[in-house]
Amino acid sequence: MQVYQAPLRDMRFALRELHGDDGFGDAAVLAEFDDETVDAVLEEAARLNTEVLLPLNRTGDEEGCRIENGVVRTPEGFKAAYDQFREGGWCALASDPKWGGQGLPEQVNKLIEEMICASNVSFSLYPGLTHGATTALDGHGSEELKQAYMPKLVSGEWSGTMCLTEAHCGTDLGLLRTRAVLQGDGSYRLTGNKIFISAGEHDLTDNIVHLVLARTPDAPKGVKGISLFLVPKYVPNADGSLGNLNGVTCGNIEHKMGMKASATCQMIFEESVGWLIGEPNKGMAAMFTMMNTERVSVGIQGLGVGEAAYQSAVYYAKDRVQGRSLSGVKAPDKPADPIIVHPDVRRMLMTMRAYLEGCRAVGVWVSRALDAETSSPDPEVRKRATDFVALMTPVVKALFTDLGYDAANLAVQVYGGHGYIRESGVEQYVRDARIAMIYEGTNGIQALDLVGRKMPAGMGRNLRAFFHPVSQFIEDNAAAEGPLAPMIGALGQAFGALQLSTATIAQKGLADPEEAGAAATDYLRLLGLVAMAYCFAKAAKVSAAKLAEGSGEAAFYKAKIATAAFFFDRILPDATARFLAIKAGKASIMALDEAAF
Amino acid sequence: MQVYQAPLRDMRFALRELHGDDGFGDAAVLAEFDDETVDAVLEEAARLNTEVLLPLNRTGDEEGCRIENGVVRTPEGFKAAYDQFREGGWCALASDPKWGGQGLPEQVNKLIEEMICASNVSFSLYPGLTHGATTALDGHGSEELKQAYMPKLVSGEWSGTMCLTEAHCGTDLGLLRTRAVLQGDGSYRLTGNKIFISAGEHDLTDNIVHLVLARTPDAPKGVKGISLFLVPKYVPNADGSLGNLNGVTCGNIEHKMGMKASATCQMIFEESVGWLIGEPNKGMAAMFTMMNTERVSVGIQGLGVGEAAYQSAVYYAKDRVQGRSLSGVKAPDKPADPIIVHPDVRRMLMTMRAYLEGCRAVGVWVSRALDAETSSPDPEVRKRATDFVALMTPVVKALFTDLGYDAANLAVQVYGGHGYIRESGVEQYVRDARIAMIYEGTNGIQALDLVGRKMPAGMGRNLRAFFHPVSQFIEDNAAAEGPLAPMIGALGQAFGALQLSTATIAQKGLADPEEAGAAATDYLRLLGLVAMAYCFAKAAKVSAAKLAEGSGEAAFYKAKIATAAFFFDRILPDATARFLAIKAGKASIMALDEAAF
Repeated sequence: MQVYQAPLRDMRFALRELHGDDGFGDAAVLAEFDDETVDAVLEEAARLNTEVLLPLNRTGDEEGCRIENGVVRTPEGFKAAYDQFREGGWCALASDPKWGGQGLPEQVNKLIEEMICASNVSFSLYPGLTHGATTALDGHGSEELKQAYMPKLVSGEWSGTMCLTEAHCGTDLGLLRTRAVLQGDGSYRLTGNKIFISAGEHDLTDNIVHLVLARTPDAPKGVKGISLFLVPKYVPNADGSLGNLNGVTCGNIEHKMGMKASATCQMIFEESVGWLIGEPNKGMAAMFTMMNTERVSVGIQGLGVGEAAYQSAVYYAKDRVQGRSLSGVKAPDKPADPIIVHPDVRRMLMTMRAYLEGCRAVGVWVSRALDAETSSPDPEVRKRATDFVALMTPVVKALFTDLGYDAANLAVQVYGGHGYIRESGVEQYVRDARIAMIYEGTNGIQALDLVGRKMPAGMGRNLRAFFHPVSQFIEDNAAAEGPLAPMIGALGQAFGALQLSTATIAQKGLADPEEAGAAATDYLRLLGLVAMAYCFAKAAKVSAAKLAEGSGEAAFYKAKIATAAFFFDRILPDATARFLAIKAGKASIMALDEAAF
Repeated sequence: MQVYQAPLRDMRFALRELHGDDGFGDAAVLAEFDDETVDAVLEEAARLNTEVLLPLNRTGDEEGCRIENGVVRTPEGFKAAYDQFREGGWCALASDPKWGGQGLPEQVNKLIEEMICASNVSFSLYPGLTHGATTALDGHGSEELKQAYMPKLVSGEWSGTMCLTEAHCGTDLGLLRTRAVLQGDGSYRLTGNKIFISAGEHDLTDNIVHLVLARTPDAPKGVKGISLFLVPKYVPNADGSLGNLNGVTCGNIEHKMGMKASATCQMIFEESVGWLIGEPNKGMAAMFTMMNTERVSVGIQGLGVGEAAYQSAVYYAKDRVQGRSLSGVKAPDKPADPIIVHPDVRRMLMTMRAYLEGCRAVGVWVSRALDAETSSPDPEVRKRATDFVALMTPVVKALFTDLGYDAANLAVQVYGGHGYIRESGVEQYVRDARIAMIYEGTNGIQALDLVGRKMPAGMGRNLRAFFHPVSQFIEDNAAAEGPLAPMIGALGQAFGALQLSTATIAQKGLADPEEAGAAATDYLRLLGLVAMAYCFAKAAKVSAAKLAEGSGEAAFYKAKIATAAFFFDRILPDATARFLAIKAGKASIMALDEAAF
């Protein structure tokens, strides 16, 4: 059974209690949103998600999207839910008030994104892609284009897409072939085929605005000859009303493993009118503006789906009776004990819990930096926030989606045979979560971005934005006592392994970039584990202090310490394995002749 | 694209070159099958699988099974394929010649099972369940029942099922409610509902013979009051012709995550005539005869599906061009290099390869013991084989299915976005492989079987059948040089961790069985990793010797050593993480109050 209530208490913990010392907390944007307002927004979002989006999750999966004569129909109930979502102002939540947005801080907005992804990740793509498109348009578009499109995109009246991939090129966009030819009036005509376009065509909005990567006839080869264009489905008239169809059609929708309520479209552009966004041949830069935001959001998808899977597994583990506790009967009134009594079931639930609380803590830390980056009054803080976001974006994307997928799989395991049956709802989480490890750059590409770009940039400047607070915290708590003491010890050891790995990769990678490539995935995971370990140790420290103060929420803080202890006992040991794998180098990865495969 | 050719060379390596010193090799059953015969059987099986079963795998997934008025239709082509399979004698391969079987050694038969699971794991269940049923019937049934049913089940003219699970009980069969009432003629009347019955109803055979767990009215409560019954769909007449329908109907078939061409049935028994198999109230013992065989076979499902996923990923990694090699252009005639040049793609392919070669090596070792157990002339060998099979059955089931699932997921990752699309065929491997971690006892149950029953049995006698050859090998090769030297060192370290873990669990588990339960899953994986490490070190040693002799198959043996090196570099480090997790004990797993979840 699909069960979900937004974990508001843990969200508030990550938002207000955990990261007070990170230096990102004085962003101007926060001043406009006091705790009471934020709580009201979070609670209202929680209600909307559980009541409106969650009930459409499984029905949407069963029904899927359909295409008839180029018209794409979303599942029953999606249009009404979208209207309610839009009318409630949820589309405009995090956007600039200049365009009608509400300017909600990212650290709050990302928590609401988590709720939406937990309730209905297929639905999340419709407003989600629009948000990506407005980010790129706002950052790089001309004032004229912005005036014409931003208000309706921000409100959700129109939706947006990102048209990057073609059948022969995904990761390697330099190969793309869609052509854009300049017209006398300054517009372009675009012709080409795109695939895997989320929300490329659907019935939720009156107009769809495509952001399309294409090449002009005289453009340099490869990624240096790619430009970004805005191509609306209907070209708006001067008065804002919709004009003619613009030669943009949906050739087909994909039959996918999951995310079935999200229309993944093959889009055909035939002499479609478009306008350049930003400079010619600088499309990749504009695209990355949008892509980086999206990468953090895709990480949040992993967290959200994982959380829903976790809650659904907890529900079942308390409800399903099977066998008796090894330490004596727990439910004498029932024919058997609920399976949550069994240590191996607990292990699975605690693993999920540790993954999700750990990711949420790291996610809020990064989101606070997103806010500081754009609105801290202190240029030093802005700089440090930018470095930190740059470093952590690939980590959030890959780590959260990997662990969210693992959590979904553990949920199925808790359900046993019933989890394999579609009616249970949990196998859907596995199918839905699988794509997040792939799109917006596969997790392997995230790892290469981390070791190849983010790590070496500015002689390790990005890394310092992460290493410094962690080493400071270890130093400050070297004399810790009680449950924190072993956590600091283990954190110190894992951090040491991370530092050594960093030096190894930097050194070997200089002489041979394949060495960095061979280490990339394990290094990203190692860094992610250290980030979670740091957050858990801080959480345990904060919680211990609250308990010492005699907090009225003892159960919450005790559970937080217990979950942290579990993380250090059972999850962090993987850091040692990753360190050993990195140390082994590329030799045995590259040894086999291609013909031997 | 679904690509599969049976890995005959690696199969022959595991069968003839790797385990010569295991002491299981002189089983009588082997004498009747010389190398030439075995090769011919393997080659013919490979051909049949690639030509007949593989093409039906994806179409079977798309079409699925249907039910109309209780009649279950398998997908287009399945009936013809089953007829061809049966007429070719493949159903009868491993069965006793007394019943028309061919008496093929298990070590060869399990390799053919691997091929069938790789080609079409949904199909594999139809003959597979029949084989399980004949094992139980042959082991526990009366001569009269055997005479009436064995020949037609062995030939595949009729098929068999195992009817265990009910809606409220899977793992905890003690709760089951299906009733069997003795009649004046010695038969029973069975009434009850069973779920998750693979091949419970279908259109491949004229009759279906159900092996049903049920309770007589006066039976003791719990598992001590369960008996096993044979209940045919049609009761055969004395002359072997089919008589009346026997009150066995299929209420519905399940809508599942995968395995869609396998009919998973809700079976309703209404006053159905049945006959007792074995003693009253001893049904669990008879069921475990069948279950143990099936558990090894389910492990082989993981290996088979993983191998198909691996081969499909290799195909794509050589075909798909994207980006350029970090060490310089490799395919100057193409717009980009094939993705197999990238270290992170290699890492994924090598991981799959190491998993599958490692599992195959362990699997053949266990299958050799299965043969020795039943047909070694030496009672000491039979005893040791029985111990070894008992220990390794849960390991094969859980380890192979976990790693097979991981391999399937890595294949999707290699395909990138295309892997998420159904047409690619690889996401099906993920969906199909997922169930093997659950059915025939979840992998958590396997782990509990290992630490709770198999480990302590006979004061560790089962364990000694594994520990002894491993420690002997480490000792014998302590002075190894070249690539074997670090492997022996790493194997010794992992084996030491396994011994320590065993002692820890044995000690703590005596005082508190929850400690054993908390360690179970990590312990099973640790043991599995050591088993694979042992096989890889042996494989490297054998291969180095062949190369030193100037073998004409240098490419094969070099690849084997390279894969072994990768395993020790990149996979075995997980043993350290598992050891640390086990050492941590149950405290943080059990700390949280149930209400805190």
